[in-house]
Amino acid sequence: PLCLCWALSPVAASAPPNLLFLLMDDMGWGDLGAFGEPSKETPNLDQMASEGMLFLDFYTANPLCSPSRAALLTGRLPVRNGFYTTNAHARNAYTPQDIVGGIPDSELLLPELLKKAGYTNKIIGKWHLGHRPQFHPLKHGFDEWFGSPNCHFGPFDNRALPNIPVYRDWEMIGRYYEDFKIDLKTGEANLTQIYLQEALDFISKQQASQQPFFLYWAIDATHAPVYASKRFLGTSQRGLYGDAVREIDDSIGKILNHLQKLGISENTFVFFTSDNGAALISAPKQGGSNGRFLCGKQTTFEGGMREPAIAWWPGHIPAGGVSHQLGNVMDLFSTGLSLAGLQPPSDRQIDGIDLLPAILQGKLIDRPIFYYRGNEMMAVRVGLYKAHYWTWSNSWEEYSKGIDFCPGQNVSGVTTHTQEEHTTLPLLFHLGRDPGEKYPLSFASDEYQRAMERISLVVQRHRATMVPGEPQLNVCDRAVMNWSPPGCEKLGKCLTPPKSDPKKCFWPH
Amino acid sequence: PLCLCWALSPVAASAPPNLLFLLMDDMGWGDLGAFGEPSKETPNLDQMASEGMLFLDFYTANPLCSPSRAALLTGRLPVRNGFYTTNAHARNAYTPQDIVGGIPDSELLLPELLKKAGYTNKIIGKWHLGHRPQFHPLKHGFDEWFGSPNCHFGPFDNRALPNIPVYRDWEMIGRYYEDFKIDLKTGEANLTQIYLQEALDFISKQQASQQPFFLYWAIDATHAPVYASKRFLGTSQRGLYGDAVREIDDSIGKILNHLQKLGISENTFVFFTSDNGAALISAPKQGGSNGRFLCGKQTTFEGGMREPAIAWWPGHIPAGGVSHQLGNVMDLFSTGLSLAGLQPPSDRQIDGIDLLPAILQGKLIDRPIFYYRGNEMMAVRVGLYKAHYWTWSNSWEEYSKGIDFCPGQNVSGVTTHTQEEHTTLPLLFHLGRDPGEKYPLSFASDEYQRAMERISLVVQRHRATMVPGEPQLNVCDRAVMNWSPPGCEKLGKCLTPPKSDPKKCFWPH
Repeated sequence: PLCLCWALSPVAASAPPNLLFLLMDDMGWGDLGAFGEPSKETPNLDQMASEGMLFLDFYTANPLCSPSRAALLTGRLPVRNGFYTTNAHARNAYTPQDIVGGIPDSELLLPELLKKAGYTNKIIGKWHLGHRPQFHPLKHGFDEWFGSPNCHFGPFDNRALPNIPVYRDWEMIGRYYEDFKIDLKTGEANLTQIYLQEALDFISKQQASQQPFFLYWAIDATHAPVYASKRFLGTSQRGLYGDAVREIDDSIGKILNHLQKLGISENTFVFFTSDNGAALISAPKQGGSNGRFLCGKQTTFEGGMREPAIAWWPGHIPAGGVSHQLGNVMDLFSTGLSLAGLQPPSDRQIDGIDLLPAILQGKLIDRPIFYYRGNEMMAVRVGLYKAHYWTWSNSWEEYSKGIDFCPGQNVSGVTTHTQEEHTTLPLLFHLGRDPGEKYPLSFASDEYQRAMERISLVVQRHRATMVPGEPQLNVCDRAVMNWSPPGCEKLGKCLTPPKSDPKKCFWPH
Repeated sequence: PLCLCWALSPVAASAPPNLLFLLMDDMGWGDLGAFGEPSKETPNLDQMASEGMLFLDFYTANPLCSPSRAALLTGRLPVRNGFYTTNAHARNAYTPQDIVGGIPDSELLLPELLKKAGYTNKIIGKWHLGHRPQFHPLKHGFDEWFGSPNCHFGPFDNRALPNIPVYRDWEMIGRYYEDFKIDLKTGEANLTQIYLQEALDFISKQQASQQPFFLYWAIDATHAPVYASKRFLGTSQRGLYGDAVREIDDSIGKILNHLQKLGISENTFVFFTSDNGAALISAPKQGGSNGRFLCGKQTTFEGGMREPAIAWWPGHIPAGGVSHQLGNVMDLFSTGLSLAGLQPPSDRQIDGIDLLPAILQGKLIDRPIFYYRGNEMMAVRVGLYKAHYWTWSNSWEEYSKGIDFCPGQNVSGVTTHTQEEHTTLPLLFHLGRDPGEKYPLSFASDEYQRAMERISLVVQRHRATMVPGEPQLNVCDRAVMNWSPPGCEKLGKCLTPPKSDPKKCFWPH
């Protein structure tokens, strides 16, 4: 058929490539065979890496899901796009279903911009940028949606808390634990298979219509409660978490295969990464691994923010490449625009950079990585150096309840349980020699002096241009929960909200 | 030339392959790109893995150098071949230059046995099986030697302690820091280049003479004091340790290339591994990484004993293979014999197994791994389960001096600073779900009961057949040090030993 010939011919300047972002949930740097997971159970992802490019120094913009996803889609740090809180100092905040805020209309999301280049945009899976009507993904540039606004927590009793809705496009089509089953005892759920089929169908449809597409595949099987479908349960050496990873690996294999079969792999830029580090509080059964890196999700140590990342684009990206480019999920915004032939917005600060020179020409672009927790810049990476301006794992109070973001790890003066300020004399690590952040450099050393001079300039410049957005994650109200999402009437699934009672959200970490 | 044609033709049953064992010193599981080292600076070893087979569950027989090497060459646990001490409970012992003992004549070493099949055997690098005349490698089956009997510690003053000699075959040809320079300030030393040239020359010579060879390349640049030659200094993101790894990686690339150029790669079985886990006490500048595994050298946690391992034999081993076969350095003895068409000795217990079914046919052989510290079986691995019968990192006394085998790591009740006996109720870990040994299974669980039933049988059987050898590492005497090695007269390098004063050696760990 004609479409095949078109796809196999060299990409014309006028035909922008499809974009496919595979975003994992709470998957850690150490969860893939290609990144040294000792069970080596991800043959498809490992093959994707060997056919594409492995990013070893790729980061998220925040160690928690909602801000990370807001950053990915806006190309901006959460402190700019509003996905943070000022209720307390240096707190991680996200979008539980009593959150009042969400993505502001003033933010420009990648899919909104891609429309100008004729893209059809679909999100499959978790949105997490606010669940109230004004925050709906189809109001922010997506044309299609299958998935959910919040995490798949539950089951709830629909009295104190409603079960989380699952949407198709504008309307809900059911709720988790009611219409979309997750068996918390066995870990069985069919969701990854559903998300896979959604992806395959969308890709087929787009290929048939010869319209470029942006598919944001934001699945969540590796977020607690972790799940896998029956065929994968018990198949991993790593237990249920590993079963979930195997199913995802298998699904990604099928998606890439589908692109190849349809003849559009050379016209589809695929990027795989994760929203934040593995949730070690839930490990080993419900959480993954950050390999040798320190601590996990919720922290600004490497384990909380360094992500597995693979770029794949046959015929364009040299096979088996490895990049040490410092990358960030925000770069997917800028890189996506670049691939679509679009300019980034010029009326605002964009933190993402176009990674194409790194991906296609092997260039190394000098840029810092900022590690934020809420409204505080906790750390910064410049080259191989990382300076901690603040250290905190979690409070003694939370720790004494058994909440441990660094199980089995303890670096004295680093994984602190009180918020420790180091702004006048930052703790400095060399991540090449010491990726595990165990050996702070001596303050008196020449190396410290030289590195901090360079870093201080970067931080100064960053602070000078920093205009924080209006914080969106300060106010919670049980009345705004998913009681009566659009479409609930047809299903007879509307619930009555309680009276509005807005409060400051409580963010313990 | 004729030899090339012969080498490229299928291996005849009568032509046993050459054996090349590349044994690293204190290199850890996490030091190679293929095993997830985040700087990914080992392109040659990674390529070796992609052309050969990666072993993810490969172990040493002891977390310290001398016993590990004695086990490799005899196929027997150190507690059988005498490479242990009974001076105190559960102590690691090795062969410093005041050690009186060494490899007993009664032990049969792989090169001794290979002679029967016509092999020429060479050791390049560190012997470590005793430095007194009766323990000389040429008395135990090797035909050639270039290297040293002990570690390259120094420089010494030749009064209290003599500098360590370097041998060529029967005689010393110089001493470290005198004739073979190691610059402790810059880390510069040319030794890896010398060991490389020795290997290339030996291989060329053997290829020319068409005699099968066994080359045991036991180099030591990654053992403190870590060194690299000028060309590699400062080239690694990982500092001096990484420079050493890069030079080794480069050298191994040259060796494999040499085999291919000579047309004998399909007739040479190559195995790469290390003698014990990375020495975290020396990290990061002088020590490597055990990845996500717990603790390091000197301990019976995974970080002390799980090793990077790669088998390479083009045309025989399928490229890109990965094996979960539980392997051990002792298997190199049995596998080497098998490749040479020889039977293992039947008059003694051999702990190694023939790995060829795992390597060539992908079979998984059910066998346990025993983790010894001196005379004590500290732990055992059966399948994915590991049971700790004793736990100990090091003593409070040593720990309080700053000697830490588990820097940044602390698993309560596991990384203990007193020797803790768990023989009636072993601590049990599932290494698939929990490779980092952080989450002991509940004693009350069904899983614990089932696993321990199986493990107890294995341990019972092991104990029933255990006949410890005469301990060789109990007695130390300054008079036996390398004062006057053979050949010293010609060089004018003989030193006068002090009066004999044998004492119990002191082993703190």
